[in-house]
Formats: sequence, C-alpha cells, structure tokens
Amino acid sequence: MNAGKAELLTATMKAIVQRVTKASVTVGEEQISSIGRGLCILLGISAEDTQKDADYIVRKILNLRVFEDENGRAWSRSVMDKELEVLCVSQFTLQCILKGNKPDFHSALTAELAQPFYNSILEQMRTVYKPELIKDGQFAAYMQVNIQNDGPVTICLESPSGPTDAKQLAKLEKQQQRKEKTRSKGNLESGREKGALRSKAESNASSGAEGDVSSEREP
Amino acid sequence: MNAGKAELLTATMKAIVQRVTKASVTVGEEQISSIGRGLCILLGISAEDTQKDADYIVRKILNLRVFEDENGRAWSRSVMDKELEVLCVSQFTLQCILKGNKPDFHSALTAELAQPFYNSILEQMRTVYKPELIKDGQFAAYMQVNIQNDGPVTICLESPSGPTDAKQLAKLEKQQQRKEKTRSKGNLESGREKGALRSKAESNASSGAEGDVSSEREP
Repeated sequence: MNAGKAELLTATMKAIVQRVTKASVTVGEEQISSIGRGLCILLGISAEDTQKDADYIVRKILNLRVFEDENGRAWSRSVMDKELEVLCVSQFTLQCILKGNKPDFHSALTAELAQPFYNSILEQMRTVYKPELIKDGQFAAYMQVNIQNDGPVTICLESPSGPTDAKQLAKLEKQQQRKEKTRSKGNLESGREKGALRSKAESNASSGAEGDVSSEREP
Repeated sequence: MNAGKAELLTATMKAIVQRVTKASVTVGEEQISSIGRGLCILLGISAEDTQKDADYIVRKILNLRVFEDENGRAWSRSVMDKELEVLCVSQFTLQCILKGNKPDFHSALTAELAQPFYNSILEQMRTVYKPELIKDGQFAAYMQVNIQNDGPVTICLESPSGPTDAKQLAKLEKQQQRKEKTRSKGNLESGREKGALRSKAESNASSGAEGDVSSEREP
C-alpha cells in the first residue's frame, strides 16, 4: 500500500494515440511500413516500467473508444471493433524531463533494454488482436513518420498510476482520507489538499450537464 | 502555499509537440494551412487553466531545444533559434479522463471559453516570435492534420504543476519535507512517501552515466 500521491511522481509508460486516416514510416528513401484508417501510436517506455504497465497500455490502445459506431455516434468503437490497423512506433522522447528548455531523457529505459521490451509489447498486441493489423517502425532508426491525424483526435495514455484515470483518482481520494485520519489534527494544509482531491474526483466522476464537453463532443 | 502533491492531480494545459519536416491542415477539400520544417503543436486547454498556464506553455514551445545546432549536436536549438515555423491546432481530446475505455472530456474547457483563450495563446506566440511563422488550424472544425514527424521526436508539455519538470519536483520535495515536520511522527506511510519523492527528484537531477539515454541520444 505504498500507492497514493507519491506514486503520481513516478515515471509511467506513455503512449500518444492519434486517430488516423493513414500513416506511414519512411527510413531513408524507403517506406518501410504503412496503414490506412486506424491508430498511430508513439510509445515511450520509462526505466521503471514493468509488464503491468505494458498490459495496461496494450489493453487501452486496443479498446479505447475513439471511433464512431454505424449510426455515427462518436466515442463508441475501438480499433478492434472496427477491425482497423495500428502503426506503433517507439518514441523514447516521451520520457522527457525538462531542465529549463533542454529535454533530458534519463528516465527513459535504455535502448538496450527497451528494444526487447518494446518488441514484446508489439507481440502482445498481435496476440490480443490480429498480427497482420499491427505494423511497426524501425527501432532506433531515424524515421519520417507521416501521420494523417483524423479530427484531429489525440489522446495521451499513461500506465496505471497515471493521473488520467477516474477510478484511480477515486481510489486515491479514499486512501488520502484514510491517511488523514491517522495524521495529527489541525493541519490546515493537509485539509486543503483533501478538499482539492475530492473536488477533482467529483468533477471527473460527473456526467451530462455541460453538453459542450460531454463524451459526445466532436473534435 | 496550497501547492504540493494535491496539485499534481489538477488538470493542466497540455501540448503535444511534434518536430516536423512538414505539416498541414485540410478542411474538406481545401488545405487551409501548411508549414515546412518546425513544430506541430496539438494544444488542449483544461477548465482550470489560467494565463499562467498559457505563459508557461508558450515559453516552452518556443524555447524547447529539439533541433540540432550547426555542428549537428542534438537538443541544442529551439524553433526560434532556427527561425522555423509552428503549426498550432486546438485539441480538446488531450483533456481526457478515461472511464473504462470511454474517453470523457468534462475536464476540457468548454469550446465557448476555449476559443478566445486559444486565440489569445496564438497571438501571444506571434508577439513573442514572428507573426508570419505561427500558423493555425480552424477551431472546432473537422480537420485532417497531416504531420510528418521528423525522427520521430515527440514531447508532451504540461503547464507549471505538471510532473515533468525537474525543478518543480525538487521544489515539491522540499515542500513535502517541511510538511512532514509539522505532522505527527511515527507515520510510516508518509515516511515512505518522502523517500519515494526524494529518490525520484534525485534520479531526475542526475546527469551523465547512462550514455545511452543522455540528452545527446538520438531518436
């Protein structure tokens, strides 16, 4: 139970998911990979990631509802539901810490360790979905990745402990409340923290009302 | 001083920065915007963002060192240093909370409020840099955004309180330490949190050593 707030500071696996009309990878003069409609994934593995992070990211990529259904209802179907393609490209620069204006990549998994891990993630996607619909870039090569972002629709995924999951936030809030009980009373600051956590979890859990930003909102 | 850990849970302005060889926006049959070498920015404004968030994001976009210098040294020059172009496209889907596999966008700023804020951010970039080098999409339109990601090089920016800034992490650690002093002793769990915060801040502050993931690493 060392979860909670500190965990939010640990590095997580990151995936930038772009819904595409088409996407391709060129190395030098040669186009080595291409897809039609589907998802282009830029995937960044941190030095702290485990198989659990990979499981989460693979599950979310393949099940994320970013496509419309047959009646044109947005945010209803996944890439698997629609039997569309996935182009996945390794992207260590997502594990970036800024030092002033200079990116620092020490929190990225080293290339030596990242390559087999990245390949196993691709294999996992092929196993869960269809091998012929999962395409790849060329690990560590200098690539031109052509992405025709459709919408645009772009979503950042972060593996389990990331702060973007409503359930996770609700869980954190409960842990926070339990911890508060064990702490000394009269600490105004931690009381305010608790309030901030609660209002955040509530706003995430709410639905309807602001029609403009509902799940049905189009890009 | 309501900063600290709770703040990490609040929504922040997000920008996906892709280094590009070229990028363009098409609406219907018409190409409405295009750039050559430079940066393509997908920008998501949260309901909690203020001018302070905008200031941070504009500063980081324009000064981020993602280009090489005249001697080919990577991560040395900004888009302004190289006098390259910026294509910025509004992207509310970056403010996404997952409810299972369904994206929820209630934490995004409503379109009505986001449009003037977004336009002011573009104006700010034009003022700081050169107006003719900052291009735009078409707010709230259905667009095809064609991005030729060069490398690829992709960086996620989050406005000040985001967990990706080394200085911010060091500051949080100090705040954390001060708070610990005011709390009841013997709370093992918060002691562990403190340790986690410290080790994270240290690992971010480290330099050299793992040559493979140093700032000089190429995509």
